[in-house]
Amino acid sequence: MRRTITLMTDFGLSDPYIGVMKGVILTINPDVRLIDLAHQIIPYDINNAAFILASNCYYFPPRTIHIAVVDPGVGGPRRPILVYADEQYFIGPDNGIFSYVYQRNPECTVRAITESHYFLPPRGTTFQGRDVFAPCAAWLTLNEDAALFGDEIDDYEKSAFSLPVRSGRATEGEIIYIDNYGNLITNIDADLIETVAKEINSGPPMVIFNGTDLGKIEAGYLARPVGSPVAVIGGTGYLEIAVNRGSARNLFNSQVGAKVIVVFGRNE
Amino acid sequence: MRRTITLMTDFGLSDPYIGVMKGVILTINPDVRLIDLAHQIIPYDINNAAFILASNCYYFPPRTIHIAVVDPGVGGPRRPILVYADEQYFIGPDNGIFSYVYQRNPECTVRAITESHYFLPPRGTTFQGRDVFAPCAAWLTLNEDAALFGDEIDDYEKSAFSLPVRSGRATEGEIIYIDNYGNLITNIDADLIETVAKEINSGPPMVIFNGTDLGKIEAGYLARPVGSPVAVIGGTGYLEIAVNRGSARNLFNSQVGAKVIVVFGRNE
Amino acid sequence: MRRTITLMTDFGLSDPYIGVMKGVILTINPDVRLIDLAHQIIPYDINNAAFILASNCYYFPPRTIHIAVVDPGVGGPRRPILVYADEQYFIGPDNGIFSYVYQRNPECTVRAITESHYFLPPRGTTFQGRDVFAPCAAWLTLNEDAALFGDEIDDYEKSAFSLPVRSGRATEGEIIYIDNYGNLITNIDADLIETVAKEINSGPPMVIFNGTDLGKIEAGYLARPVGSPVAVIGGTGYLEIAVNRGSARNLFNSQVGAKVIVVFGRNE
Repeated sequence: MRRTITLMTDFGLSDPYIGVMKGVILTINPDVRLIDLAHQIIPYDINNAAFILASNCYYFPPRTIHIAVVDPGVGGPRRPILVYADEQYFIGPDNGIFSYVYQRNPECTVRAITESHYFLPPRGTTFQGRDVFAPCAAWLTLNEDAALFGDEIDDYEKSAFSLPVRSGRATEGEIIYIDNYGNLITNIDADLIETVAKEINSGPPMVIFNGTDLGKIEAGYLARPVGSPVAVIGGTGYLEIAVNRGSARNLFNSQVGAKVIVVFGRNE
Repeated sequence: MRRTITLMTDFGLSDPYIGVMKGVILTINPDVRLIDLAHQIIPYDINNAAFILASNCYYFPPRTIHIAVVDPGVGGPRRPILVYADEQYFIGPDNGIFSYVYQRNPECTVRAITESHYFLPPRGTTFQGRDVFAPCAAWLTLNEDAALFGDEIDDYEKSAFSLPVRSGRATEGEIIYIDNYGNLITNIDADLIETVAKEINSGPPMVIFNGTDLGKIEAGYLARPVGSPVAVIGGTGYLEIAVNRGSARNLFNSQVGAKVIVVFGRNE
Repeated sequence: MRRTITLMTDFGLSDPYIGVMKGVILTINPDVRLIDLAHQIIPYDINNAAFILASNCYYFPPRTIHIAVVDPGVGGPRRPILVYADEQYFIGPDNGIFSYVYQRNPECTVRAITESHYFLPPRGTTFQGRDVFAPCAAWLTLNEDAALFGDEIDDYEKSAFSLPVRSGRATEGEIIYIDNYGNLITNIDADLIETVAKEINSGPPMVIFNGTDLGKIEAGYLARPVGSPVAVIGGTGYLEIAVNRGSARNLFNSQVGAKVIVVFGRNE
């Protein structure tokens, strides 16, 4: 069975850095599948990368290896790590980039990669994506024994992501990702909404954003006229503020961190 | 023989949406070849996508499956369809995106995809690329029987693309695509020009664009000095207005829809 | 052993031109690995492309075929060529794009590709990437005999790249590439610095750029505070001017061609 390695970086698409990482991998194992997950992460934005990874990695085959390189500390003391969680592997810097993965899988295994004989002889200290992460991922496809790469650790970096806050009939969350269409993705997931709605049991939850009452959560963008805002459960499984055929980012002039309120049972 | 699936979307390249579609496909069939055709289609521009698909799909191996997701009606009543034409498959929304394919292949077979057991369990209704089109394409590589996916239909959406209009010695067409170099590609194809030229039989056809007489159709960009406009038959097989080492879009401040006239036999 | 073909172009990422080249290759050999090296080369900038290719190609497996299409002379008299150097193949226009490869491998073999039966029937003269380079690369993976494509030549185009100039205790080079982070990569390589430093044997070399004394060459970006400039040996093996978590291009408002001076033994 052919193995898949995904790559996620903040390298952008203009430089040869992604291509050369693939060259390193294919030199070690020419039979690996290589998939680009995302390369235009906001530079150095670890939270952005962590969310993208966690909301997409489980659509890949079991035993996929996800390389994540958003690494403002490259060349410093932060360790390269190898994580195993939910039948998937993750390789990258120990800077919190896998925090959502840890949150979802408290049983995960995290190892510091110390066996430097797997690395390329470095040219400079600035490109560990090519010299460390890529070759380790490739060697792991050839010998799937994570323990070969280093010992387990438990003092790895965990970022504290903001979680929705409930207060009576209202739950307040925030925008955590804005996509290329200008859809605003919140940190309020469908399960949470469903749980609270069942508990309160009093009519559909209503969404308030940017001082605007968006009404109830609709089944899709088309529930509202072209150009109008609409709250939906997006493809990530999280509440999303969108505009039918338009950009919610532009309509609301919105940014990551903006607050969103879901009100349950307002109309009793 | 390894099968190829191409992907064309208006998703842009910054989000993980293309990568996650590939993850879904590889989970079903890890042996498929995945090729990106274009992902920066003008958002919601079905004509733009239809032209790109039709002018490039026949360079792929027979039995390639082309997924096309430019889908302003996602989540609405428009059907997902599976088209077979000229030994190639096409999967996408029934919104006219395959109109050039239909035009070229009146014998094509179009099916509404109704067998929803091939779909992923949806998260929201907004990402059918991942939940519907990707898994159907992957399953089709494993069992190449299009009838498994749904029944044939004949009321599918056909867009009416503007065609060149002939009037005496002049044929008027328009710009239908502008590429990254600023080359202006028209809807006047080389065969049409050759046919009319033979019929009129009176010297080379001349091209007029934006009030400028561009003279005859040249064999290549280099026929004119650097920075000068030139009419050529481009790589798509259509008449193209270009600038040697420059951008015709910038020189003429031009847009899709601008008129182009080919005059036959002017110099008699 | 599966063969790898890389693609480097100045096509940008919005058009289907790269995808269609891959379709042509897979139609001839569906088993080839296809890797994008870089597609946002500055349009028509042969030096930019030549540097990217030469500083990355040797990270790919032996017998990789690198297609390079930055080709302002397409459709003119310049020849398509096939180069063999250091166990790698290179296919592209004879316009100097492989000059760094020649410089590094004086023993390389260069052939004019004249056997046009390998080409696609051309549509226009403007897309030799699809009609000439892609099919030749694909056929070469099936029959690895370069002589089949044409005879050896020795009058191929060699660009003269600017090399660092030494004058006493100072060596002057220039910026030859600026990456997406705004890192400024110079033409002064680590080996040269080491050689001169050994010879002069008098303390660490110091870097002067844009009238600013950057001090000694550091082991990594983190050696300086966030927002401060730092000279490092970058991942390409060349001296690089960077800014910790920032953009040296923006800080210095810098461009390709700007001068950089390395001073040896200043502090004796």
